[in-house]
Amino acid sequence: MNKIIDFLKVHHDRFEQELIDILKIPSISSDPEHAEDMHITAGLLKDEMQRIGMENARVMDTGGHPVVYSEWLHASGKPTLLIYGHYDVQPIDPLDLWSSPPFEPVIKGGKIFARGSADDKGQIYIHLKAIEAWLAVRDDLPVNVKLVFEGEEEVGSKHLENFIQKHSEMLTADYVVISDTPMFREGYPGISYGLRGLAYLQINLRGTATDLHSGSFGGLVKNPINALVEILAQMKDVDGRILIPGFYDDVLPITEVEHDKLNNLPFDASAFAKSIGAPALFGEAGYDDLERLWARPTFDVNGIWGGFQGEGAKTVIPAEAHAKVSMRLVADQDPDDISKKFIAYVDSLTPVSMQADIEALHGGFGYITDLNNPGLQAGVRALQKAFDREVDFLREGGSIPIVKVFADIVKAPVLLMGFGLPDQNAHAPNENFSLYNYHKGIESIVYFFEEIGKLKG
Amino acid sequence: MNKIIDFLKVHHDRFEQELIDILKIPSISSDPEHAEDMHITAGLLKDEMQRIGMENARVMDTGGHPVVYSEWLHASGKPTLLIYGHYDVQPIDPLDLWSSPPFEPVIKGGKIFARGSADDKGQIYIHLKAIEAWLAVRDDLPVNVKLVFEGEEEVGSKHLENFIQKHSEMLTADYVVISDTPMFREGYPGISYGLRGLAYLQINLRGTATDLHSGSFGGLVKNPINALVEILAQMKDVDGRILIPGFYDDVLPITEVEHDKLNNLPFDASAFAKSIGAPALFGEAGYDDLERLWARPTFDVNGIWGGFQGEGAKTVIPAEAHAKVSMRLVADQDPDDISKKFIAYVDSLTPVSMQADIEALHGGFGYITDLNNPGLQAGVRALQKAFDREVDFLREGGSIPIVKVFADIVKAPVLLMGFGLPDQNAHAPNENFSLYNYHKGIESIVYFFEEIGKLKG
Repeated sequence: MNKIIDFLKVHHDRFEQELIDILKIPSISSDPEHAEDMHITAGLLKDEMQRIGMENARVMDTGGHPVVYSEWLHASGKPTLLIYGHYDVQPIDPLDLWSSPPFEPVIKGGKIFARGSADDKGQIYIHLKAIEAWLAVRDDLPVNVKLVFEGEEEVGSKHLENFIQKHSEMLTADYVVISDTPMFREGYPGISYGLRGLAYLQINLRGTATDLHSGSFGGLVKNPINALVEILAQMKDVDGRILIPGFYDDVLPITEVEHDKLNNLPFDASAFAKSIGAPALFGEAGYDDLERLWARPTFDVNGIWGGFQGEGAKTVIPAEAHAKVSMRLVADQDPDDISKKFIAYVDSLTPVSMQADIEALHGGFGYITDLNNPGLQAGVRALQKAFDREVDFLREGGSIPIVKVFADIVKAPVLLMGFGLPDQNAHAPNENFSLYNYHKGIESIVYFFEEIGKLKG
Repeated sequence: MNKIIDFLKVHHDRFEQELIDILKIPSISSDPEHAEDMHITAGLLKDEMQRIGMENARVMDTGGHPVVYSEWLHASGKPTLLIYGHYDVQPIDPLDLWSSPPFEPVIKGGKIFARGSADDKGQIYIHLKAIEAWLAVRDDLPVNVKLVFEGEEEVGSKHLENFIQKHSEMLTADYVVISDTPMFREGYPGISYGLRGLAYLQINLRGTATDLHSGSFGGLVKNPINALVEILAQMKDVDGRILIPGFYDDVLPITEVEHDKLNNLPFDASAFAKSIGAPALFGEAGYDDLERLWARPTFDVNGIWGGFQGEGAKTVIPAEAHAKVSMRLVADQDPDDISKKFIAYVDSLTPVSMQADIEALHGGFGYITDLNNPGLQAGVRALQKAFDREVDFLREGGSIPIVKVFADIVKAPVLLMGFGLPDQNAHAPNENFSLYNYHKGIESIVYFFEEIGKLKG
């Protein structure tokens, strides 16, 4: 192993330069004007995969922006890793808030500032450089590796599920590895073992055929906004507990081990509240802050509208009122089941004077990896060795729908080993990636291959 | 009296033609392009007042569109009537829904179709023609009369309160008479003895400095839309009773006499619900439909907005949420007092995690005339004689803020004797006015002068 680690040291500067080179290409997947840049980036990745010794490297059609694939499958009897990442980046607006041009990478204070640095080019380069080091020094890998880098993550991975379905044979693996998340705090490696899911719906309430004058009709008719707020107010009790019947049926409880691990993470509620400009935090009674954020489901009204929204006073009883609502789910809640329960509950709360039309708009399963999973444990050992620090056990409050797709189709546990930082500005101006984390990340993956190689395939 | 009634018959057709003539002038007060038409209409009214024998007729400056004033004050020892009306009309959009051009009056099925026919030119002409008949036949009136026709009713009577204040000496009267409301049903004269008031406010709730991602923050923070719906849902109980502490303190109860009179009016709830496309009506428990509409206060959310309102699903926890709310008030509720009570109640319901900013936007007192008021009783007798039908005792669900201004400054009871019909389309295409009501209205006012003349000044 020392020789591989030495290799990393020798090539330290080149690894940075190579990352800078790919960060210069504006691979904005949402902007048709950058279609050519998407192809240039995909081609550069394919060439790089070939150069470092990956095999069958190719740019594969998906119907949208292509997937870049390659493999190295000579570790017979050893586990196979499917490493997923994405080479597309977020748009750059508002450009005037950037301190330096988003596609002219600048190193400042140990960080590289550029669009895509943390999300996700820096993180896919960690894997490429770890593979390069192993193959350059040993001409061998202790695991089988398949790389799948897509170009549509920032636009909802529209074609990826089909691609995975279609190529499910090619993509068989024992573990899926994704490096696209931040660590919890600087200097401390983290591994994410859970994600929340989502059920997103829209309620449309209609009271009358047309808007009515509140003087001529007020008192005689039910106002759909009044009805809507009364319905939505019955979604949670004063303790923040969700009142939809059966909502918690499939929620996996937080184990004592998890509770202790989450509790070990430093979280300053009042500093956090201050950072977002909130007078105070609020969450479900009986749970700690990080449990509320990562391990408990939520109910939020994401949008509401109806009636008069202009300047001044218009005395209207509107014909309609609308709300968009979503529930963050946790394993093992099923978004379809939750949507059905929500619809039934809203129907039961809708007064006879009102017509309700409820549509499910979007959904995804939550995900959790067993803390005792051997792949996860291998990741923990590798991270600890590279960073020389205890590993933070994290969950994500958000959803990465593709994780559940991988888990279901590839039928392998998903390991989320991310090397970003909380202030990485992933979807904002001045996106940045810590170079310390970049190099420690490469070292971590070098050790991770070794650790995974000790497991059976 | 027979001679006066005969005069009406003889001049029946001319009275219609004169109404047609003034209806041809597009006196749209809200449209600066019709400023000249406003002056033409005011001048025509002044000339007509002079022609029929009114004195001191003049077009008076208000700072906005002028008031046309005249008087006849020779009935010494008799009461003085201040007759208020307006010569401005609503805009005509959408023009393509009119069956005939809005300023080319057409008579069809006993109705005259034109913008301003019911609201309010037809109704001010009723008074002019009644005065003309009295003065033509008797060269005398049994009452003192002051006419005040304004040109800004459809744009909120912006300058009228100042005008009344400034000319309060000139405007002293024993009764204020307004003909600008509809009857309850065809063929039955009605007198309105009450109006509702209004308190209109806006709630602005702020949870955080900026919008947050519901995955990265959901569960930890209070969502301002969730908070807003919870606050608004606590404004009424399941019986439709308003929960703002002290809200009902000054509400005048419905007397048994009133209850019986309102109960006598035919109201078909299911036909009414069908006509507005409502699955069912809803109102405060313990009250009849017309009581709910006319004699009980309300709470309505007139507008609500916050978060994502576009197509699809955006998982945002918005920084802010807003609502416009209004309460229709009844005598003797004070809009300022009600606004204060509302603000205090919202403050008490606002969670510590939220900042609330509440602004009062608009307000007005309700109004009620004693059913035993001698002027009102005189009106009832006159209407009954002209229409040969029992008089409907009505209240208005809406507000006419100027009524309270008259009541307060002129310090005289306000009598609302309107001759429109429920399907008059006052602010809509195909506005129309029943010619039967026009002529019966003139007859009613002829008798009304006689009845008022029997009272002491």
